[in-house]
Amino acid sequence: MIQAQSHLATHDVTNQPGPRGDVDLWQTDLPLREAISREGGDPTALAPYGAQMGAADTREDGALANRHTPEMHLFDRAGRRLDEVRFHPSYHALMRKSTAAGYSAIAWDTGATGGHVTHAAMVYLASQAEPGHCCPLTMSYAATPALAASPDLAALWLPRLHARRYDPSIRPVAQKDGATLGMAMTEKQGGSDVRTNTTTATRDGNHYRLTGHKWFCSAPMSDGFLTLAQAPDGLTCFLVPRWLDGARNTIRLQRLKDKLGNRSNASSEIEFDNTFAQRLGDEGRGVQTIIQMVHHTRLDTAMAPAGLMRAALAEAHHWARHRTAFQKRLIDQPLMRAVLADLALEVEAALALGLRTARAFDGTTEQDRAFARLGVALAKFHNNKRAPLVTYEAMEALGGMGYVEDTPMPLLYREAPLNGIWEGSGNVICLDILRTLARDPLAAETLRAELTAATGANRHFDAALAAHAARWPALPPEAEARWFAERTALLLQASLLIRHAPAAVSDAFTATRLAGEAGRITGAIPDGDVTALLARIAP
Amino acid sequence: MIQAQSHLATHDVTNQPGPRGDVDLWQTDLPLREAISREGGDPTALAPYGAQMGAADTREDGALANRHTPEMHLFDRAGRRLDEVRFHPSYHALMRKSTAAGYSAIAWDTGATGGHVTHAAMVYLASQAEPGHCCPLTMSYAATPALAASPDLAALWLPRLHARRYDPSIRPVAQKDGATLGMAMTEKQGGSDVRTNTTTATRDGNHYRLTGHKWFCSAPMSDGFLTLAQAPDGLTCFLVPRWLDGARNTIRLQRLKDKLGNRSNASSEIEFDNTFAQRLGDEGRGVQTIIQMVHHTRLDTAMAPAGLMRAALAEAHHWARHRTAFQKRLIDQPLMRAVLADLALEVEAALALGLRTARAFDGTTEQDRAFARLGVALAKFHNNKRAPLVTYEAMEALGGMGYVEDTPMPLLYREAPLNGIWEGSGNVICLDILRTLARDPLAAETLRAELTAATGANRHFDAALAAHAARWPALPPEAEARWFAERTALLLQASLLIRHAPAAVSDAFTATRLAGEAGRITGAIPDGDVTALLARIAP
Repeated sequence: MIQAQSHLATHDVTNQPGPRGDVDLWQTDLPLREAISREGGDPTALAPYGAQMGAADTREDGALANRHTPEMHLFDRAGRRLDEVRFHPSYHALMRKSTAAGYSAIAWDTGATGGHVTHAAMVYLASQAEPGHCCPLTMSYAATPALAASPDLAALWLPRLHARRYDPSIRPVAQKDGATLGMAMTEKQGGSDVRTNTTTATRDGNHYRLTGHKWFCSAPMSDGFLTLAQAPDGLTCFLVPRWLDGARNTIRLQRLKDKLGNRSNASSEIEFDNTFAQRLGDEGRGVQTIIQMVHHTRLDTAMAPAGLMRAALAEAHHWARHRTAFQKRLIDQPLMRAVLADLALEVEAALALGLRTARAFDGTTEQDRAFARLGVALAKFHNNKRAPLVTYEAMEALGGMGYVEDTPMPLLYREAPLNGIWEGSGNVICLDILRTLARDPLAAETLRAELTAATGANRHFDAALAAHAARWPALPPEAEARWFAERTALLLQASLLIRHAPAAVSDAFTATRLAGEAGRITGAIPDGDVTALLARIAP
Repeated sequence: MIQAQSHLATHDVTNQPGPRGDVDLWQTDLPLREAISREGGDPTALAPYGAQMGAADTREDGALANRHTPEMHLFDRAGRRLDEVRFHPSYHALMRKSTAAGYSAIAWDTGATGGHVTHAAMVYLASQAEPGHCCPLTMSYAATPALAASPDLAALWLPRLHARRYDPSIRPVAQKDGATLGMAMTEKQGGSDVRTNTTTATRDGNHYRLTGHKWFCSAPMSDGFLTLAQAPDGLTCFLVPRWLDGARNTIRLQRLKDKLGNRSNASSEIEFDNTFAQRLGDEGRGVQTIIQMVHHTRLDTAMAPAGLMRAALAEAHHWARHRTAFQKRLIDQPLMRAVLADLALEVEAALALGLRTARAFDGTTEQDRAFARLGVALAKFHNNKRAPLVTYEAMEALGGMGYVEDTPMPLLYREAPLNGIWEGSGNVICLDILRTLARDPLAAETLRAELTAATGANRHFDAALAAHAARWPALPPEAEARWFAERTALLLQASLLIRHAPAAVSDAFTATRLAGEAGRITGAIPDGDVTALLARIAP
């Protein structure tokens, strides 16, 4: 495992865990395999992808793609305008692997069952290897239902989005075998409040011309973008192709965002100036059209933090098993065991809620639709709120080493806040939860059904469910939306663990998360038998 | 406030809060001024320092010092060995300001009262402007009591450590007007477990020669380092001067750490090879000698997170007051108000506990000594556990902007885990708390006195104090050390707020932190009157 090394004159290196080598992210993850089995995902797609994402060379590509970050090339050497972003070969290698595995495609395969669950598990796996390259693939996955608003555009784009071929060449989409789609929605003055958009769309024959500025354009090297602009009849969704026949469409890159994390992925500010655009959906229906895309990107933002937390936990666990302090392996120190067990509960609960929600995306009933909308918001909110804390605690398990970018911990910690912010920050999501419950009686009904399915088996759960109903006989005021969302998400997670996980997991989860037998800090839990919890982290 | 700008062809920039300009960190911080008044710090030193640290030019220096990070210069251009680290002028400007204000010196001024409180408040203020330059200044502050072990070395070093003159020149300390001291304690194989150190010390006349490697050497451009090595009679503390008469001492820089944050500060790996060293304290008493220094650096690691959290809260509050979404200022949105109020409780409680602990450092009784040892561990553990969460939530208040390094939020979030890791990570500190309580009856007694001083005024506090005693009639098992530490720290914070803060603060704190009327996520609190809490954030 340890490579040949030069002699050090002053000391020997001992008690330093070696690199992890090839890690099979599927085989080593029991909670994942159990959840895929019960939610109906496809193990034959996930087993090879899990092995591939955990391979040492994939993880090395991940590190390189984050060290050698994308560069903006505005002009060629003669000063001709290009507006390109160029990436390190490691980024392209990651894109090729995940595209080929069906990250963006598998949910829409007509032959597949459980495609959204399989897709969601791929997000979880890819996030453990390199989270940045997920962005364009997630958008390409999520654009599919929005394209239904225009059969012509769907016929052109869908076969290429689903082709499982990564083609970063600079050509009009009609000439390509594989394509990706990005999104450029928010503007400086509005953020989440997209109705304040000022970008204008004027009709030009069958098409439109856009003028304005987008403050966050994700993955600017995508082959096209879904965007919003003010048309004569109101805010409208458009598809802006990146390349035209014989010319580049006017998408002027202004700046790449200098982000805390997600550094392998380019995020940018762009300018439209008489830019060619094709309408998607009716004029004035922009939000309703693009929300189809956002609804699906939110599933991925709910799964990604589970992957980040899993990766952090696995690193800390590896370290604790191979490092000794005070004459004892770290994994045998009672307090370290309490911390790792507590983190394992976070990961398993986040994974369970995310994949249960993904199953609702696979479903075809009105109940499924209602649960998908509510569940994805609860999972996005709660899973992401835990990710900074979990990645930080896992970092601390490595001591000072964890704070150094040579280990994966800084990358995971820097990535942790992102999915809670984009696609709707915490407050926006919590208010959306209240709105869904107020407007859609079926959402409340499916939530109730999911919760009551677990009653009678765990006294902490039963008591917490009754307390929830007593605390909020009606919907809470806006100011309590986060509190309500957290408690509801915890009850949903508990319901899943009670029904499907070993009693050691659900008992510990409900005692610490629902019954008040825990603090707000990781590892602040009662001394108990944590052996069963630790055994589920890795074989 | 907004500078002159070029015209943008495609849009106008609106609804973007302007830069904050000069912020007086003393005048705008009511909880700080109240705490300084009650704990006995010196407002005449803190008022100008708070104004200086919050000035726009100081904050700009902070940003530059973190962008243009220190560089290792191993050799001169002719290939002569240098082993130097070179810094950006902005770093030197920060060092000059904080040194002149007395950051390292004021606690030891014989004429001053409340010097440790004043020093601790300076850590809090400096951390808001630029946390990286605090490291060498904190070590120079903390080395003072360890130097008492050798009157000769104390006579040489103390006047220069306390001179309030920043002198980064490369000369033996005897020729300098001002000096700094660093620390190089841990080795690869041991981390916190310093008794596993393998660096050797052999006697050479009145002095020693060291050979070995240190895995974390903080601030390698300091004028000297306290370090540990195995002497003939056991692990011993040494002072290793950086420069000798006519030569450089052999401190071979191997690598600068590529850290997640704290980027303006250099942390390094170094090699000793027949390196000149002076003994500090007896052979075999190395841990007992250097722990004097560590005890004092821990005070700063307990205060720094309070400063980081305060800086993050102030940025979020500024943003919320000057940004509108959905036809309403963010500061008027009920859920945003709940989040900011919850964050304000974190900051005020962390500050109160940190400065109360600092007062024990100023005290001269056995009770003070006992409380200082226990309080600093509780404050270091608890304040740092909250910092990643608080900085993350404040970041999210800015939406996508908060994730971009143009704002201060990424720096604060990247810095947040550090003080919980160095100088003893969470588990080490919690086990130290149990050890202190087991060995020193006076520690338990002073803790009890501090807690019971607040009884009878708040029913949540009284109930939580009784529950704490019932839960742990004796000390908890190791596995529950974090839980015990968290609950004890919360009770201490509550005791201080009940006695000294407005009822709006202590009522909200105890209801949400002690009585279970809150979740584990920020802003998951009951709807209440938060106006009083928000009013305390800024005038």
